[in-house]
Amino acid sequence: MNNNKRSAVSTVPKANPLRVGFIGLSAVKGWAIKSHYPAILQLPSQFKITALLNSDLESSLNTIKKLKLTHAKAFADVTSFASFTDVDMIVVSVKVPNHHGILTKLLEHSVKNPNLKYLFVEWSLGSNLREAEDIYKAAQKRGIQTIISLQGRKSPYIVRAKELISEGCIGEINSIEIAANGGWYGYERPLKSPSYLYDIESGVNLISHSFGHTIDLLQYITSSYFSEINSMMFNNIPYQELLDEHGKRTGKKVPKTAPDHLLFQAALANGNVPVSCSFKGGTPVKKFTKNLVIDIHGTKGDLKLEGDAGFAEISNLVLYFCGMKAADPGGPSSTSKADEANETMEVYHLRNYNSVVGNILRIYEAIADFHFKSNPRHNLPAKLERQGFLFEGFPTFKDALILHRLIDKVFQSSEEKKTLTVPIVS
Amino acid sequence: MNNNKRSAVSTVPKANPLRVGFIGLSAVKGWAIKSHYPAILQLPSQFKITALLNSDLESSLNTIKKLKLTHAKAFADVTSFASFTDVDMIVVSVKVPNHHGILTKLLEHSVKNPNLKYLFVEWSLGSNLREAEDIYKAAQKRGIQTIISLQGRKSPYIVRAKELISEGCIGEINSIEIAANGGWYGYERPLKSPSYLYDIESGVNLISHSFGHTIDLLQYITSSYFSEINSMMFNNIPYQELLDEHGKRTGKKVPKTAPDHLLFQAALANGNVPVSCSFKGGTPVKKFTKNLVIDIHGTKGDLKLEGDAGFAEISNLVLYFCGMKAADPGGPSSTSKADEANETMEVYHLRNYNSVVGNILRIYEAIADFHFKSNPRHNLPAKLERQGFLFEGFPTFKDALILHRLIDKVFQSSEEKKTLTVPIVS
Repeated sequence: MNNNKRSAVSTVPKANPLRVGFIGLSAVKGWAIKSHYPAILQLPSQFKITALLNSDLESSLNTIKKLKLTHAKAFADVTSFASFTDVDMIVVSVKVPNHHGILTKLLEHSVKNPNLKYLFVEWSLGSNLREAEDIYKAAQKRGIQTIISLQGRKSPYIVRAKELISEGCIGEINSIEIAANGGWYGYERPLKSPSYLYDIESGVNLISHSFGHTIDLLQYITSSYFSEINSMMFNNIPYQELLDEHGKRTGKKVPKTAPDHLLFQAALANGNVPVSCSFKGGTPVKKFTKNLVIDIHGTKGDLKLEGDAGFAEISNLVLYFCGMKAADPGGPSSTSKADEANETMEVYHLRNYNSVVGNILRIYEAIADFHFKSNPRHNLPAKLERQGFLFEGFPTFKDALILHRLIDKVFQSSEEKKTLTVPIVS
Repeated sequence: MNNNKRSAVSTVPKANPLRVGFIGLSAVKGWAIKSHYPAILQLPSQFKITALLNSDLESSLNTIKKLKLTHAKAFADVTSFASFTDVDMIVVSVKVPNHHGILTKLLEHSVKNPNLKYLFVEWSLGSNLREAEDIYKAAQKRGIQTIISLQGRKSPYIVRAKELISEGCIGEINSIEIAANGGWYGYERPLKSPSYLYDIESGVNLISHSFGHTIDLLQYITSSYFSEINSMMFNNIPYQELLDEHGKRTGKKVPKTAPDHLLFQAALANGNVPVSCSFKGGTPVKKFTKNLVIDIHGTKGDLKLEGDAGFAEISNLVLYFCGMKAADPGGPSSTSKADEANETMEVYHLRNYNSVVGNILRIYEAIADFHFKSNPRHNLPAKLERQGFLFEGFPTFKDALILHRLIDKVFQSSEEKKTLTVPIVS
């Protein structure tokens, strides 16, 4: 089955588009204008921006004007935004340290908002596990369909890798290696780079983002959580040199408390598969290897994903596969001879795929399919508590919470110098 | 300095060759005939085999006849062999589980042997740390120059890598990844393969040999021991299927208690460098990557070693280097501009290098240089207690003991599920 082919089976809804209230969309800067906004633009029958909230009203009004958001109303505070009834879905794309404050307030003040059904938040859910649990509980209490932007799960390469593995094309997985370069945490830092990225307290760092997204994808591809993990964290570069806008060294040094390297090794719960990860924190880049390599070895083949940066969720990847053709469900069980005849190879790459927009777009598509029931293939419950390892649907706050728990264990393992058991996900 | 160029500076000794007593050289089978013997053959002015001991006298007599070892005498037991005075050096190449018994007896009964000066033993020294300590102490008590066959230290690729790093060509090392495939410990086992290789008690396994040799080389290249380590061991294949002499499956399964995967992550004492290792235990081989990859990243460049098997000490490797030209010792300190002008690349490979013989040969050369003082470059003490990270000399029982201690920690870390501190080597 080809889970990447959506267009053939999804239809344009007959109903009105979902009305979107957006927190953190600015026409002039930030993440949303580069990713969420172009994605929404491509789905005009499914989504329409009707409300906008930014740190100041001015910015929202400017954005409405610049982007010609004729249906959108600008708000000055979370409280009034939360009770605006002309909204079916709220999207939050602000810096993570502000998630907890905004989301708890939003969920509290939207209780009586009759139309609000969906809440879509950027990863990570909170700055730490405690915040994430708080937000998760608040959303549960409010009763709302949650979506988290672990958008790599929608990457065509990730979906294809998951397909190949779930169809037995590499046999049983017996080992995995990941080496990645997380970009920001090297010897130098651009002058304009926001300082919270380098502050361990903010919860936005090599572990939460470069590792967090990647390891979520690994679990998603292999359809398995971890049973046991060990980690060692390094902050070998406690001071970074500032670079000016031309990339020249300024000679000025600033402190960094966030780690610049993570070593992580673990066993997957399914099959007790050994997984080895090395996450490097930035420049200089590697000369003889890609900055993202995921190597999956199985009893009947291998699968490799490569990308140019340690952010699998926003990188255009290349998938290399060597193994067996997908087994005929009604066919005989495999033998050496049959295996030989069934050997195959594949290199999968979409040259012009814009992964910054594309993966997020596919999350929006999944939300639309869920809401409008526009994909006959999907057979999802009325409320999606957790995507888990389904091809269909989208990751939820529950998926986010599971990942937050793993990340918390990673910090704990490094601090306590222990190999830790990961509680079974229920 | 080019530490690989020996021939230009070493000379043929004026004295008689060293007389070698060999334990475990058979003309028809085993390791020594493939490695030690061809090495000795290439150094006729430096070494001469004068005594032979095997498990039975018959085999020694046959070997003397077949190899035309006209100067050699066959012995029936360790005791008489140990007191034979026509010997300067004893080489031991028998299976590791027999090391402790043979070596302790040999050292005990050779006390009064006036000419015996050198004892050269195959890695690993013992089946475990306790045995290794015993043997080390017995050798100390006897008073003899020891040599251990951690022969990868003499590999031209390893020496070149060590040179590049010690000359600052990749700057400060900031991270290292190793992925290797240790060959024997997969789903299948040849019928003829000796069963002790698959028995955890024998002390010959993925950890002691594939990992042991490789990690010794990493420490040697980087001139650093480890400060902290964590390991996770896996025996996911408790039964292997036997293959007949044609490589066909027999359907018969035999138990395996030795691990088939090792995850190891650690910090080097020098610079707190994160090191990530994944040692896979055998077939199927990897499709998209070499079966040995050592990736060393520095602040000014990268260095990569690749080989076809997870046994760096007997593999012909390829070295890839990208970084700086060796610094002019009297030159100015480095700047960005100077760095740019000094960038260079190198691919180093000796197409016809026989690494099975070559690395061992270079150990014999080092012993000869040490004994005959035939290399004017060498400035070694009269007794080499430990090679440590010197280019000159050869690894000794002390180096072996240090490696045994690390391997013991690796087992301990996996059993206790802890990240352990490695005591400082004194």
